[in-house]
Amino acid sequence: MNVNVIATGHTKFGKDPRDIGDIMVDACNQALTIISIKEIDAIYIANFSSSFSNQCHLPAVLASKLNIHTEITRVESACASGGLAIKEASIAIRSGIYDKILVVGAEKMTSMLSGHTNGIIARAADQEEINHGTTFPGLYALMAKRHFFEYGTNEEHLAKIAVKNHKNALKNPNAQFHKKISIDDVLTSANVASPLKKYDCSPISDGAAALVMCSSKTAKKYSDSPIKLIGIGHDVGGIELYKRKEITKMPSVVNAAKKAFNMAKVTAKDIDVAELHDCFTIAELIEMEDIGFCKKGNGKQMIENGATEIDGTIPINPCGGLKAKGHPLGATGVSQAVEIVKQLQSEAKERQIATADIGLCCNVGGSGGSAVISIFSR
Amino acid sequence: MNVNVIATGHTKFGKDPRDIGDIMVDACNQALTIISIKEIDAIYIANFSSSFSNQCHLPAVLASKLNIHTEITRVESACASGGLAIKEASIAIRSGIYDKILVVGAEKMTSMLSGHTNGIIARAADQEEINHGTTFPGLYALMAKRHFFEYGTNEEHLAKIAVKNHKNALKNPNAQFHKKISIDDVLTSANVASPLKKYDCSPISDGAAALVMCSSKTAKKYSDSPIKLIGIGHDVGGIELYKRKEITKMPSVVNAAKKAFNMAKVTAKDIDVAELHDCFTIAELIEMEDIGFCKKGNGKQMIENGATEIDGTIPINPCGGLKAKGHPLGATGVSQAVEIVKQLQSEAKERQIATADIGLCCNVGGSGGSAVISIFSR
Repeated sequence: MNVNVIATGHTKFGKDPRDIGDIMVDACNQALTIISIKEIDAIYIANFSSSFSNQCHLPAVLASKLNIHTEITRVESACASGGLAIKEASIAIRSGIYDKILVVGAEKMTSMLSGHTNGIIARAADQEEINHGTTFPGLYALMAKRHFFEYGTNEEHLAKIAVKNHKNALKNPNAQFHKKISIDDVLTSANVASPLKKYDCSPISDGAAALVMCSSKTAKKYSDSPIKLIGIGHDVGGIELYKRKEITKMPSVVNAAKKAFNMAKVTAKDIDVAELHDCFTIAELIEMEDIGFCKKGNGKQMIENGATEIDGTIPINPCGGLKAKGHPLGATGVSQAVEIVKQLQSEAKERQIATADIGLCCNVGGSGGSAVISIFSR
Repeated sequence: MNVNVIATGHTKFGKDPRDIGDIMVDACNQALTIISIKEIDAIYIANFSSSFSNQCHLPAVLASKLNIHTEITRVESACASGGLAIKEASIAIRSGIYDKILVVGAEKMTSMLSGHTNGIIARAADQEEINHGTTFPGLYALMAKRHFFEYGTNEEHLAKIAVKNHKNALKNPNAQFHKKISIDDVLTSANVASPLKKYDCSPISDGAAALVMCSSKTAKKYSDSPIKLIGIGHDVGGIELYKRKEITKMPSVVNAAKKAFNMAKVTAKDIDVAELHDCFTIAELIEMEDIGFCKKGNGKQMIENGATEIDGTIPINPCGGLKAKGHPLGATGVSQAVEIVKQLQSEAKERQIATADIGLCCNVGGSGGSAVISIFSR
């Protein structure tokens, strides 16, 4: 596939006092150091909801802030918006209509009371499920309960995921949390929706991440180390848990992974490093299995033997994941790609994986209603 | 350009008791009579805001309602979302990656109190302008005031646009209003933001519109009268009126028109029928001039001599326009295309234009922050 990433930008996730426009512009400007905005043919913005910041029409906001007239499209598929923006940009480049595209994902979530924030996040779920009193922690808690019942996974396995991601985030200056935690810290933290506790849940965050994508020919002009997008899979299916045959897997992730591997002509065994969508610790575990890093139910063994640690056989979320790096919803899918690009360019500094030739991102919307999986290569 | 429309769907605009998912599905199913959902490769959804219906993640909602797994992308650029979905679908088809695409635009606006509705619509504007107390009627009123001052346009010219669009809507069964009005009715209607009165403003509406788009080769298999998309122009610029050199034109419309005409290799003179974005009557007038149907300031003469009537030299908004057909924000751009396709297929029944070979849609976001112009041909 004739699509490359030549530059990246990333704000520090967490509470950011700036408005969403300025946060977006910061990430864009970081990515625009080797190429000027005037050379960019089109822009794709990923953003979850205008309700957090009282601002939709972000294409016009960004045009105004950057003082440009160009073609700008916002895309949304809940928390999979970032991956979706990368997909739409890749289609635009493959069409030959555009050559150089800026992708930016952004969210500003900390400007309202947390009760309101959770209400807005809940809009990504089936409204019948929400009206019956559940929330996203509740939906993922159901998935965890069933996984425990069917496969013998337990709270300690999930706690180990949180501990790993917090440990990794210590080496990421852009992470929201720089706080080492223990398994006991997780297990004794406040209950959110049993078996998920506070440290099983990703936080409320502000932040933005950006990429410049272009054709291979153009990539060589701008960069000595362009990273190739070699596969991208997208799938959207039913949003409701109660309609699924099994709730221990996410069919959209299974389908998107299949498509991405087919396109990239690689298998799960070829992946050197992965960024998974750990909105909750159980999500990282389920995705490991759905993507095929192990069989369904065997995720717990990988966690037990340290396979997903930075020095393991398949490091997962070296940046700290949504759990510890933060989860500004629309930014997350783009942020995952930024990390994989840095790893493949050997520019991930303290958190650099030893051998990183091929990397994967898994970006999920809602309780698995939509998913985008992208595979990058040196 | 190898992109065609082979089927359309359209709900009756107005107050619709169904939820946004069911409204979307209705329009989709109407468009899916000559092709089945299983044959569709990807879907693009246009929607303005999740706040009206408390539901974002519409891709997953639609997948659930249609009981499918596929690739679904929501796009948004305020009220230009519908045109934008058509543009993204056209890129996807031109890329060769997808062949058959369903485009659906939808909005459910009547489910909340009107004060809240207006607050949500205002998110499409610059928040500084809004915080200083203006609203969309106020912004367009400023544009009208200045147009009056510079070019001698007056309230009666605007009233004539409303009267024409209400007259046209009488012949459109899907229109929200079937009510003939007089110039006097407009001039004596309640003041909204001087010089704009109630009948200068488009209403709050629910509704959806859908298109099936595909390559030329595929189009011939399904339809005897496919309509070709021959040009599409997209531009996004500054959102704020106070930063514009002139407020009597919308630079994004000027730029998008230029791009669309270049791509289609036609000029404004070649257009037989047009659907313009008359969110307010002044917008129809300004767009007539910005697209080049006449010189800046000469729109009033076209109105005076009836050029834009159904039997005029360049009929504008034969369906009733946003003013009388209704304006469910995300649906509007797609609805415009449905009307142009019907006109070019000679299937517009009572409101059929005599000679309709080439038609144009102008879909605008905010106070001209973004615009998509598409040109269709038999």
